[in-house]
Amino acid sequence: MKVLFTVKLKEEQERELIASYPAINFYFSGSVDDASLKEAEIIVTFGSDITDVVLDNAKSLKWIMVASAGVDHMPLELISRKNMLVTNVSGIHKTPMAESVLAHILAIKRSLPEIYALQETREWQTKIHSTELKGSTALIVGPGEIGAEIGRLLKAFDVRTIGCNRSGRQSESIDEMIKLDDLVGRLPEADFVISLLPSTRETKNVFTEIHFEVMKKSAVFMNFGRGDVVSEQVLIEALKSDKIKHAVLDVFEEEPLPVENELWALENCTVSPHVSSKSGKYIERSLKIFTYNLSEWLKEDRQFKNIVDLEVGY
Amino acid sequence: MKVLFTVKLKEEQERELIASYPAINFYFSGSVDDASLKEAEIIVTFGSDITDVVLDNAKSLKWIMVASAGVDHMPLELISRKNMLVTNVSGIHKTPMAESVLAHILAIKRSLPEIYALQETREWQTKIHSTELKGSTALIVGPGEIGAEIGRLLKAFDVRTIGCNRSGRQSESIDEMIKLDDLVGRLPEADFVISLLPSTRETKNVFTEIHFEVMKKSAVFMNFGRGDVVSEQVLIEALKSDKIKHAVLDVFEEEPLPVENELWALENCTVSPHVSSKSGKYIERSLKIFTYNLSEWLKEDRQFKNIVDLEVGY
Repeated sequence: MKVLFTVKLKEEQERELIASYPAINFYFSGSVDDASLKEAEIIVTFGSDITDVVLDNAKSLKWIMVASAGVDHMPLELISRKNMLVTNVSGIHKTPMAESVLAHILAIKRSLPEIYALQETREWQTKIHSTELKGSTALIVGPGEIGAEIGRLLKAFDVRTIGCNRSGRQSESIDEMIKLDDLVGRLPEADFVISLLPSTRETKNVFTEIHFEVMKKSAVFMNFGRGDVVSEQVLIEALKSDKIKHAVLDVFEEEPLPVENELWALENCTVSPHVSSKSGKYIERSLKIFTYNLSEWLKEDRQFKNIVDLEVGY
Repeated sequence: MKVLFTVKLKEEQERELIASYPAINFYFSGSVDDASLKEAEIIVTFGSDITDVVLDNAKSLKWIMVASAGVDHMPLELISRKNMLVTNVSGIHKTPMAESVLAHILAIKRSLPEIYALQETREWQTKIHSTELKGSTALIVGPGEIGAEIGRLLKAFDVRTIGCNRSGRQSESIDEMIKLDDLVGRLPEADFVISLLPSTRETKNVFTEIHFEVMKKSAVFMNFGRGDVVSEQVLIEALKSDKIKHAVLDVFEEEPLPVENELWALENCTVSPHVSSKSGKYIERSLKIFTYNLSEWLKEDRQFKNIVDLEVGY
């Protein structure tokens, strides 16, 4: 049995896989152009290299292990027709992503961008208007495991957390859950609006003009889910007319964000190049999920973790 | 009875004091040059305007209320000889300071300075080496209320905390307390070394070359207490020779930090202009402590809060 990795591993990680699964041929080429693609039963990928052409060439492919949470850039319909298993690593991002969200929130409250700028010009300026996170309200839209982790950390800072999902079903570490239908009515309470929504048919343009209209003028909008939950034109307009105070964006309608996009230059927008899930532990944790599922793959009675529902898209 | 404020209040705060204490004459001039200095029994100040000359002119002064934690810039010996009461607002800084310390820690772990710099040049660069705070070890030197609050927040991020004070006496929210004598032996364990030491005879140059020698090369040194706990030349040398990875400094030997000081330009040093305790709630919280003590001042049996021990200096 052949397994192709287009995800780059460390040498010691490669050695460990070879030693643990002597019956399996691993190809660590790092590319879908590898000759082994034709015969690989399993491919381990970040997802973006899986195209229609690749799928047609991968004559033996049965399982796509995506070392990412989102699968929205993959040809899901074709994969579904070919009856392939898709698993992801959803869940492993919760620590780095929650830490990134807290980092951006605290940086804004405690004036870090201003402090860095003052250092550039060697300016000792103590008239800095820092405020406290304590006592704020955060509205987390689409809180899964990542949202729960963000909620848990915010509670330590004495922040009230409101979660919002389709069902209004209670979520861990969130003070109160509301339904997506109630979002507009509750947005005026939020100091931070944090979207963690995946990209699906239902989440496209969830945030519209009216949402930014009802937010506090002092609100910070953060998008760490997927870029298409809000039209960038709507967002740019809200920022330029100071409808909200600031936006922190880790995801965009088009990635990489085109160099001419206005968001880059807005004073009240932080552009983060989709790096909030980055962590030295990413591959290590992905491999744990992969080897768990690989061991299941070799059994008769398979009980996989992290199966992607190709219908709903996550 | 006359009370002179050299601390600037909001108009509504002035009105509230006047209404609450009709028997007291309040002078809200904001300056020690006010004619009322001569007759004021109480002065409310940030501390830096209290000089020998001011004390000699303040013929009726009995109580100096300092709206700050540190009193190291005040002529404590003369105040002691004049038998004046000094109270401070130690304790009210814990929320903003702990949030600032966490902001700087998370910013470094989650690459915020790099992200901000990339935005300046509109560069989409995902090869950012962010790491996780989770699982780190922090050594907090001089943990009082502020250190306990930092420790409490770090625990939420799954950080092991070691506290260090003179006695080794247990402190809230700190996993393990060690004595100052054991500091060198335990520094090699720390990813973050956070000094909150006040400026006293005993804390001057607590950190010397040997301390930076034994720290991890990946360690971050943070000084949020007072600048004279480490000689700036020792610190600059440690940073220039990469003995440690980074320093975040909110306090300095000389403040404002002179424009020619090398620290401003070091890539691996964050200069914060002594603003970590800033918060919109600072004056409000100071006034709470002041009015508590003022009510005691008007009684026979006085039980003051936040009395400064002029011998030890805090």
